[in-house]
Amino acid sequence: MNQDAQIVIIGCGAGGGTAAQFARKTDRKANITVFEKGKYPQYSKCGLPYAISGIIPKIHNLIEFDEEWFKKQKIDLFLNTKVEKIDLEKKIVYAKQQDKAIQKPFTELIICTGSKPFIPPIQNIDCDGVFVVRTIDDAEKIQKYAKKSKTATIVGAGFIGLEIADNLYKMGLKITVVEALPNILATNLDEDMAKILLDKISSDIKIYTDTLATKVNSLNNCIKSVTIKDKKTSEENTIQTDMLIIATGTRPQVLLAESIRCKIGKTGGILVNEKAETSLKNVYAVGDCTEYLHFVNNKPVLVGLGSIVVRQAIAAGTNAAGGEYKLPKGLLFTFTSDLFSIELAGVGLTSNFLEKDTFLSGKYGGCSLPEYYPGGKPITVKVITDTNGKILGAQAVGDKAAQRIDTFACAILAGFDAETLRKLETAYAPPVAPTLDAETLACDIISLKLSRKR
Amino acid sequence: MNQDAQIVIIGCGAGGGTAAQFARKTDRKANITVFEKGKYPQYSKCGLPYAISGIIPKIHNLIEFDEEWFKKQKIDLFLNTKVEKIDLEKKIVYAKQQDKAIQKPFTELIICTGSKPFIPPIQNIDCDGVFVVRTIDDAEKIQKYAKKSKTATIVGAGFIGLEIADNLYKMGLKITVVEALPNILATNLDEDMAKILLDKISSDIKIYTDTLATKVNSLNNCIKSVTIKDKKTSEENTIQTDMLIIATGTRPQVLLAESIRCKIGKTGGILVNEKAETSLKNVYAVGDCTEYLHFVNNKPVLVGLGSIVVRQAIAAGTNAAGGEYKLPKGLLFTFTSDLFSIELAGVGLTSNFLEKDTFLSGKYGGCSLPEYYPGGKPITVKVITDTNGKILGAQAVGDKAAQRIDTFACAILAGFDAETLRKLETAYAPPVAPTLDAETLACDIISLKLSRKR
Repeated sequence: MNQDAQIVIIGCGAGGGTAAQFARKTDRKANITVFEKGKYPQYSKCGLPYAISGIIPKIHNLIEFDEEWFKKQKIDLFLNTKVEKIDLEKKIVYAKQQDKAIQKPFTELIICTGSKPFIPPIQNIDCDGVFVVRTIDDAEKIQKYAKKSKTATIVGAGFIGLEIADNLYKMGLKITVVEALPNILATNLDEDMAKILLDKISSDIKIYTDTLATKVNSLNNCIKSVTIKDKKTSEENTIQTDMLIIATGTRPQVLLAESIRCKIGKTGGILVNEKAETSLKNVYAVGDCTEYLHFVNNKPVLVGLGSIVVRQAIAAGTNAAGGEYKLPKGLLFTFTSDLFSIELAGVGLTSNFLEKDTFLSGKYGGCSLPEYYPGGKPITVKVITDTNGKILGAQAVGDKAAQRIDTFACAILAGFDAETLRKLETAYAPPVAPTLDAETLACDIISLKLSRKR
Repeated sequence: MNQDAQIVIIGCGAGGGTAAQFARKTDRKANITVFEKGKYPQYSKCGLPYAISGIIPKIHNLIEFDEEWFKKQKIDLFLNTKVEKIDLEKKIVYAKQQDKAIQKPFTELIICTGSKPFIPPIQNIDCDGVFVVRTIDDAEKIQKYAKKSKTATIVGAGFIGLEIADNLYKMGLKITVVEALPNILATNLDEDMAKILLDKISSDIKIYTDTLATKVNSLNNCIKSVTIKDKKTSEENTIQTDMLIIATGTRPQVLLAESIRCKIGKTGGILVNEKAETSLKNVYAVGDCTEYLHFVNNKPVLVGLGSIVVRQAIAAGTNAAGGEYKLPKGLLFTFTSDLFSIELAGVGLTSNFLEKDTFLSGKYGGCSLPEYYPGGKPITVKVITDTNGKILGAQAVGDKAAQRIDTFACAILAGFDAETLRKLETAYAPPVAPTLDAETLACDIISLKLSRKR
């Protein structure tokens, strides 16, 4: 325990807030300071779409740790405070809260500067009715605007885009989604798995894939329609819309880290190791601004998932305060969502990331309960392995997809092949799960394919 | 592939039926014969309680593979046929179907003789209104009797006993459960975990623990009440009841196996290895009549779980037909049930099986969703580790308990410690699961306990 530890954390999102919490858990005496440029302490960004629709009744419910909590924990929290400079030699952070200059010496620094929305080149984007979804303020504006709107167009059919689409649809808006890639959820699911969702939702909302949004058309600086362009045919089309939400991903914010010469990785994120250490001594980084390795292929990847950010923040906070916490050697990218009442989940690599003939896949679609038991729900599980059967990834759509995928996550972490996982005793009882679960049966198909090859 | 393979299977429960199925999958030409002493081919015994209450509308729906299916698969199925003798030297099985004698030569033999109910010493048990639950016939009788009854007493508060209690309760009967051990579900759950269920159900049904049923009191050979005795105080009590169901476990049926000198293990089951081979060449055994090893402590155990039986049957059927299928080095005993609308699950050892001071436990009870998201349900997870943190078992009560336990099953199979599992990226999204799941937080407590010891 370092009696004189002065831990300064830049940013109070899920990363910074959690890092502060675990630094405090690890060292009860450390001086801990958190600078946050926004007006709220740690809140759930992932909850924003649901706060817009009112499923989460009050947007401010998203605040997980309020100012009172930081006070009780004796953590100095500065809201509305922008860090302007870091002097690495003198070990001082210079910040500004409105006009007040603040200097804070540190022994350990944790950079949690997050990411900013990536805005694709769309003309005339600066008019009323065009939004991004990054903050509570954004969500409040969207909610207010949606209440007086009839139609909404979402650019981007990744998770955030479709979660926004789902929630605005629940508010009664007519929804259009425009996606530049050939498939929805293209980074997370294989086409055949995404299609299960697509087939369900296409009657409710209009989805354009392989399509760019090129221009916002406005009247009195207020959006009236958006021009879209088919990437293959170059055909243009105009969609009447009362609002446009841009959900085309984010880019890491690394200016401060760059200013002190933290190494930046190939993906544009701050390079960190399994302890959340950067290339600089006593400087840690956490969250959407960082790059780590993918567990399965060992390639550099941006972090960008709340569940990872929190675990990385536990590492940074614990290690900065003199404790010890090492992450696994890479990230699994376990994810889930519930879109239009269909649960989706996945882990590891999808076949999009793999060269043809370098992998096998096994898919099983069936019922979540034994055939004879009423009330079973559809579940499809797909497993991806290398040509020796080692599990590289898995995807699930349907009943309890998330928890089924957690088992695959554990199997990947263990380095299991499908042959081992198919023999795992899964929990069975007629009202709960069948003797041979969809997980097992997807792995069986890999075994069958391998036995045919021999 | 053995062109002359003559596979004879004794018993057509889940074990025999599945073994036949996988023998056929492995060798399309083998002669496969199944002898079943009852009148039905493979059906789900685990489904019987739900067929009694009518949740499964027709009891015969439980038949998973009917006679037609066996015909199509070119498997000779003999129902109502009792195997009387095995000549191991001549490799002939002698059976009797009513008065018809049948001789069947075999190259491979698979013994799936199952188990029989264990009946505790209760006086006057042979009167009307007293039942066991092993077969479709038993279930039909219980259903018929329950429809004209107002009260039922169940002896045994294990899974089967409580599943029967739950289903008869759903039929409107007043329920009493009598258990000789100090707790309900004593072989499957720790007392504190079982108590979560107990607290919920004790307002609906009367449960006596540490209590023996000693005598059935009848009028005109029809049950009127049952005498129970408190094991500690020896106090006796009489419970008026219209029916009594005995659910106090089973004993392996090994007479045929003994007759050919198959080695019988310490627990009374036929000794089998990871290929489901017995001590005799070309003789396999599967299911409730067998003994294998516990994965965690390597001690001999009776099989007795449907999910295990099916996997063991895959091994026996595949191997007997010339294929190759090896089970893991022991059994995990992953289980689940839904009792009075509460999902329970577990895997590995409970603390009842462990010496004091040889293990640690971590328990977390909370909500299945992030606090800010409405509709979360209670979930409690408990993990048991050795004093170095290696996972020995886990139990869960509440939302998606079964799939959460499947992840622990995978972790135990991988030999993980709690420190590794707490770092597993679990799937997170506000409407599906929190960033740090109950699984993670239960493991966190182990880490905390270990760090305090250091």
